[in-house]
Amino acid sequence: EEGFSFSDHSHRRFNPLAGSWVLCSPHRAKRPWLGQVEDAPREQRPAHDPTCFLCPGNRRATGATNDHYTSTYVFPNDYAAVHAEQPDCSTDSLAVVAGENASSALFRVESARGQCSVVCFSPRHDLTLPELGLGEICRVIRTWQGIYAELSAKPSIAYIQIFENKGAAMGCSNPHPHGQVWALSVVPSEPAKEIESLKAYRQARISTNPSACMLCAYVSAEEDNAAAGEQSSRLVLQNKSFMALVPFWATWPFETMIVAKSHVASIADLCESQIADLAEVVQGLTCRYDNLFQCSFPYSMGLHQAPTTTHPDAACCHLHMHFYPPLLRSATVRKFLVGFEMMAEPQRDLTAEQAASRLRAQSSTHYKL
Amino acid sequence: EEGFSFSDHSHRRFNPLAGSWVLCSPHRAKRPWLGQVEDAPREQRPAHDPTCFLCPGNRRATGATNDHYTSTYVFPNDYAAVHAEQPDCSTDSLAVVAGENASSALFRVESARGQCSVVCFSPRHDLTLPELGLGEICRVIRTWQGIYAELSAKPSIAYIQIFENKGAAMGCSNPHPHGQVWALSVVPSEPAKEIESLKAYRQARISTNPSACMLCAYVSAEEDNAAAGEQSSRLVLQNKSFMALVPFWATWPFETMIVAKSHVASIADLCESQIADLAEVVQGLTCRYDNLFQCSFPYSMGLHQAPTTTHPDAACCHLHMHFYPPLLRSATVRKFLVGFEMMAEPQRDLTAEQAASRLRAQSSTHYKL
Ligand SMILES: O=P(O)(O)O[C@H]1O[C@H](CO)[C@@H](O)[C@H](O)[C@H]1O
Ligand SMILES: O=P(O)(O)O[C@H]1O[C@H](CO)[C@@H](O)[C@H](O)[C@H]1O
Repeated sequence: EEGFSFSDHSHRRFNPLAGSWVLCSPHRAKRPWLGQVEDAPREQRPAHDPTCFLCPGNRRATGATNDHYTSTYVFPNDYAAVHAEQPDCSTDSLAVVAGENASSALFRVESARGQCSVVCFSPRHDLTLPELGLGEICRVIRTWQGIYAELSAKPSIAYIQIFENKGAAMGCSNPHPHGQVWALSVVPSEPAKEIESLKAYRQARISTNPSACMLCAYVSAEEDNAAAGEQSSRLVLQNKSFMALVPFWATWPFETMIVAKSHVASIADLCESQIADLAEVVQGLTCRYDNLFQCSFPYSMGLHQAPTTTHPDAACCHLHMHFYPPLLRSATVRKFLVGFEMMAEPQRDLTAEQAASRLRAQSSTHYKL
Repeated sequence: EEGFSFSDHSHRRFNPLAGSWVLCSPHRAKRPWLGQVEDAPREQRPAHDPTCFLCPGNRRATGATNDHYTSTYVFPNDYAAVHAEQPDCSTDSLAVVAGENASSALFRVESARGQCSVVCFSPRHDLTLPELGLGEICRVIRTWQGIYAELSAKPSIAYIQIFENKGAAMGCSNPHPHGQVWALSVVPSEPAKEIESLKAYRQARISTNPSACMLCAYVSAEEDNAAAGEQSSRLVLQNKSFMALVPFWATWPFETMIVAKSHVASIADLCESQIADLAEVVQGLTCRYDNLFQCSFPYSMGLHQAPTTTHPDAACCHLHMHFYPPLLRSATVRKFLVGFEMMAEPQRDLTAEQAASRLRAQSSTHYKL
């Protein structure tokens, strides 16, 4: 009689950061796919595209003209989701949409202010993060540091989200290498949940270890697991300061997390050698992503860290980056998180261990080189 | 000086069912779209497709042959995410993937059993829900009732999720009109959250109203709001037993909810006239969806209700259906919930009131007729 096997039998894994479960059905990876296929990204792009609104010297949709930049380049998002100035949201204004029920618990609203920027990673239209040099990735990280420090100093800003959408499959409308920063007057839902989890973890252990941290503990557990052998390893790559791994509770097929190995609250706290280490892990991970299906691997990526440097729970926070890539089986076959996933619970096919093992097996040299 | 306007200024709305927020940026609807466009669904399909594995009499991928069915047709999912029988998940098996850390709070797992079925709505390959007759939609609802009753009686089943993925954009691999039922040995995350919210709402009011229900209160508030005029109306259509509306806290551009107007725990409790009323609202809503962009409107749809008829909190539950459609601007331009949405908080452009007003304006006659 055979026992339970994590690579054959359905199970749920708990995500202690988000406080939610994921259903894992490893046998399901055998399912044939007859549905929508993604366009394979066009691989040949010019170094400068005169029609691209992010290339140096070009005119943007709203009429502004980009500098002839040669490194990273930051400008305000022309279609910002939030603005610095707007009237206050009063009970009177709420009454327009919620009538006499405006005061009820069912019609809760609050105003949201802030600012949105675009961060071009490079003047080169034809490159992506894994194709940039380490020095250039370091410049991107230093640019993030600068924005984070500047926005952290504004009393009107409560949260700074740095992220990148890469690839048409992830709603990115322009292949020029770039990310975004959305800074808000409120802490949004996802980071708020993570902070609650990190605080609760520390609180439960505070009498014996006042600086207990879930992610410090997780990193150290995963170092042990990786050392114990292939079957229990979720590690993709690491250096002195950072580790890239497929979290035990990953949802997306090749979801990964880059996590600081020591307790660092935010990118503001990174010294030069840590910046170089982060650049190396970002490059190594995204390069393996591209090599996996020999394509420019789409994903959404973002930094989770202290909401701002001065947030009251900043000391509890632990810098990490999430990568959520949709591809499942090839450059054109993706996982859809729909139906059951939307109504009930995220579901994945291959296990985190299988995904990590496939990523580890990739070369650290980009397939285009 | 102008005041705050819900159709011009950014704000967050709270979803009291899911317990989460959505960021609303109404001015952003003006943004041009240069990114991925969806394939417009091919509109001409034969009534019977010999290559379709759902059509009557055809052979499925795994070799089984479909009955020559003439109404609805239910069969086991050939690639089920969960199975009725599998070994137990022991600490020993967990140790294989989590090593010495298997007992830690960071590596929580549980076994998941259950069964998955496919429900064909009609033998006709070329029709979709809005194109079926009311009698045929009633048969679909009665089929759901039958499955729900049968699975509810199994002690091994804790939760029954009925849902439909429609359209290639929503990961549906076959245009034959069909939905799925995934029944699990555990209550998944999303319904578990909703049940907690419904219980907390009742608990807070129990001394004055022992049967207080958030959704009963919400339906009645939205009836008032709709009667008060266009600006505060989120109603799409209603009859005696059901209401279709764009919830105040909708995330997807044209997200809607069909909700029972009286307190009904599950479809098991619907009498014949309520079934007919539900069929009418399902048809009316999905027909308006198709008419909006003159296409077969993609969505994921699912029922939320008592997990099973015998669940201890069944009396607290209130039958409703969620529709999550991705299209934003046309048959080919969708909203992507990526980047900021994945890392921080869902974000929408047009307001719930604007979406409802556009859906209300659609004809109740299908554009193909
Ligand atoms: O079962 P299907 O239709 O092949 O697959 C679809 O629905 C499932 C349940 O929502 C999802 O897990 C899949 O990712 C999706 O492609
Ligand atoms: O700002 P972009 O790249 O045009 O738009 C993309 O990213 C945004 C932030 O994640 C999303 O809200 C949009 O739906 C997506 O298409």
